Amino acid sequence: MTARTLQGFMELLPEEQIVMEKMKAVIAHTYELFGFAPLDTPVLELAEVLLSKSGGDTEKQIYEFKKGDTNLAMRFDLTVPLAKYVALYNNNLTFPFKRYQIGKVYRGERPQKGRFREFYQCDIDIIDRDELNIVYDAEVLAVIYTVFNKLELPAFKIYLNNRKLLSGFLESLDIADKTVDVLRLVDKIKKIPEEAFLAELADLGLPEDKNKKLLEFIKIKGSNDEIIAKLEDFKIQNGNYQNGLSEIKIVIAQAINLGINPQNIQIDLSITRGLDYYTGTVYETFFDEYPQFGSVCSGGRYDNLSSVFMDKKFPGVGISIGLTRLFDQLRANNLLKIAGPTPIKVLIITQNPDFADKAITLSGKLRQSDIAADVMLRDCKFKKKMEYANKIKVPYLVIIGEDEVANSTYTLKNMLSGEQKTLNLNDLIQEIKK
Amino acid sequence: MTARTLQGFMELLPEEQIVMEKMKAVIAHTYELFGFAPLDTPVLELAEVLLSKSGGDTEKQIYEFKKGDTNLAMRFDLTVPLAKYVALYNNNLTFPFKRYQIGKVYRGERPQKGRFREFYQCDIDIIDRDELNIVYDAEVLAVIYTVFNKLELPAFKIYLNNRKLLSGFLESLDIADKTVDVLRLVDKIKKIPEEAFLAELADLGLPEDKNKKLLEFIKIKGSNDEIIAKLEDFKIQNGNYQNGLSEIKIVIAQAINLGINPQNIQIDLSITRGLDYYTGTVYETFFDEYPQFGSVCSGGRYDNLSSVFMDKKFPGVGISIGLTRLFDQLRANNLLKIAGPTPIKVLIITQNPDFADKAITLSGKLRQSDIAADVMLRDCKFKKKMEYANKIKVPYLVIIGEDEVANSTYTLKNMLSGEQKTLNLNDLIQEIKK
Repeated sequence: MTARTLQGFMELLPEEQIVMEKMKAVIAHTYELFGFAPLDTPVLELAEVLLSKSGGDTEKQIYEFKKGDTNLAMRFDLTVPLAKYVALYNNNLTFPFKRYQIGKVYRGERPQKGRFREFYQCDIDIIDRDELNIVYDAEVLAVIYTVFNKLELPAFKIYLNNRKLLSGFLESLDIADKTVDVLRLVDKIKKIPEEAFLAELADLGLPEDKNKKLLEFIKIKGSNDEIIAKLEDFKIQNGNYQNGLSEIKIVIAQAINLGINPQNIQIDLSITRGLDYYTGTVYETFFDEYPQFGSVCSGGRYDNLSSVFMDKKFPGVGISIGLTRLFDQLRANNLLKIAGPTPIKVLIITQNPDFADKAITLSGKLRQSDIAADVMLRDCKFKKKMEYANKIKVPYLVIIGEDEVANSTYTLKNMLSGEQKTLNLNDLIQEIKK
Repeated sequence: MTARTLQGFMELLPEEQIVMEKMKAVIAHTYELFGFAPLDTPVLELAEVLLSKSGGDTEKQIYEFKKGDTNLAMRFDLTVPLAKYVALYNNNLTFPFKRYQIGKVYRGERPQKGRFREFYQCDIDIIDRDELNIVYDAEVLAVIYTVFNKLELPAFKIYLNNRKLLSGFLESLDIADKTVDVLRLVDKIKKIPEEAFLAELADLGLPEDKNKKLLEFIKIKGSNDEIIAKLEDFKIQNGNYQNGLSEIKIVIAQAINLGINPQNIQIDLSITRGLDYYTGTVYETFFDEYPQFGSVCSGGRYDNLSSVFMDKKFPGVGISIGLTRLFDQLRANNLLKIAGPTPIKVLIITQNPDFADKAITLSGKLRQSDIAADVMLRDCKFKKKMEYANKIKVPYLVIIGEDEVANSTYTLKNMLSGEQKTLNLNDLIQEIKK
């Protein structure tokens, strides 16, 4: 039998997995700082539940199968499971309900570079009954900002927009009936030439003068304050436009109250997030120097999470980080700080197999002091033991030899600086913990 | 569309999920203290890879399906994926290879109380090439001991045995040819009456006098030292028996060197872990007061992990905690410390909606100081806000009213003691961090 892993399924070496786990921990910790509670829904659901909301493309990609008489499917995102969860448990939840979920989702896409069939999504959503305060849209910005700061990745910018602005603008041009199609098209503007964009608008039956006005609108550039000033200058009075303008002003102002560096957020009127699902604020996040990564964190505001499952209205705002793809891109560009293949901080080696008991006892004491430690138990030459220590890139080495045993001391070597100290147990623990 | 979750799939409320995540974090942290590196293999594998090792029962339970031309299966444990992983990547791994994996596995069992179709396993294994030092069998004991201590669960005991002892004993009785059947039968001794046990031995064609000796042997009671003394008294000279005896003595002695309280480990010669897979030390873990939970952590030593996939020999020792089942049993017996449904430590409320900006700004500053905080943004009466704070069981409340705004201070209420203090920002942060 040949050992094989399926194509499109990421499997990491320990030194890579350690970095991945650190990223997950940073993301989870940040989400909790903002009051999001963890959630963990099943990977398998009834097919009819998962497919209740999806369209054609998703349906083709889904891993669906029958077990006994039941049609099952593997989740393809964490949003439909959340909608199901809120529909099922809303009477037991406290609203506003803030949850995060970091979990694997499954899409049977044709495998290609940078596409995965199993990948992590790291989602947050804030859900309320009937109405959700717009300040949460700023909080979500602050979460993205904090996560990417803490991950210590390349310089990034969060681009935001409010779909009501564009809807209101189309209304003012008297072409509101084409809003859904136009917003989907605007979503592609960065990927196609302007002429192609205008041609596609013309194909929708829209007149040239209005299309040019639309193109000008979505191309408005400037600082956030400048863009807001320009948006005000239009003096468009319809409700959609005025709501969108008012909302984006609050979001920017409160994001700054929350401590975001204004350099990291940028209004971009061409961002729409194609999906009809979003109704207000939308977000995308790009690395300044790596635009080819695409958006590494996207999301937005929606009016009703669980409409498929229930009548009650649950508006929300949320984002998702596609962690597997992000990790893969960072790795391919040497942007990950990959170190050794073990989480230990200290490796204990002996100069003589007779001292093994001392080494084993010390490992117990270090671990009881919350220091990750290991003993080199292979019976091999001292030189081999040193080679092993170098290979696993351990930060500290403790050497137990005759002098150390005679004096009840330990020789601690800092593997980075090369510095060596001979210490008693308490001082050893203090020194490592520094 | 009715929202539904599949039977046998655990789905928790936030206040429960928070406890579950804490348990996972304690387990992962302890595993890392002992030098185990994280691993994360796919949930889906080629069916032929997963089924390469399994027998009849597992095959019936497996979630298997076809996508395109490929036969896929969801993993039913974390051991077969590890065997595949080591076979695939052994040239890139450093040995001894210590890995942990905390992940969901899938078994389509008939749903019944306490049985799950999707459940977490928390596994560790230490793998080496050709030979693995017996001290690792003691290290695994220390891991179990440390995990259950840190989880702050009811009093527990780890029972251990060495299958070589029983094999050697059977050899000394001249019934070594029945070893596999007898070990499987011994595994059931706690679940069936002695007469039934003896009858089943007789059914194997074994003579009564030997069966009685076997029963006496597996019923040997006493402290670890007493049992070892009795085992020595038998003076059985075959290699299996002598190896088993020597190994179990080392394991007990090194476990004590590693700092285990001897009260928490107990040799039990009736433990065999039915599977033929195990070849030496075997472990089971029981709560003293809740034997009905069954073993909450089991495992053992095996000679060759990846024999299905390759010729090279990789002996190992490992254990698994069935976390979902354990959580379910602890919850059913009110043994979990379930608190509020949110990870926040501080809730900020205002006496007047005009102070919302102050509250939002403060939430940003608290989070920047690594304090999980949230603002009550719903525009409601102060009394309602207090009710909300009580409902979510938040440890600290910060109240912003006119005096506080005028003096740039904050009123901090300890929700447990009821104590209130008015503090400036720095003191507020220090007080909460205490």
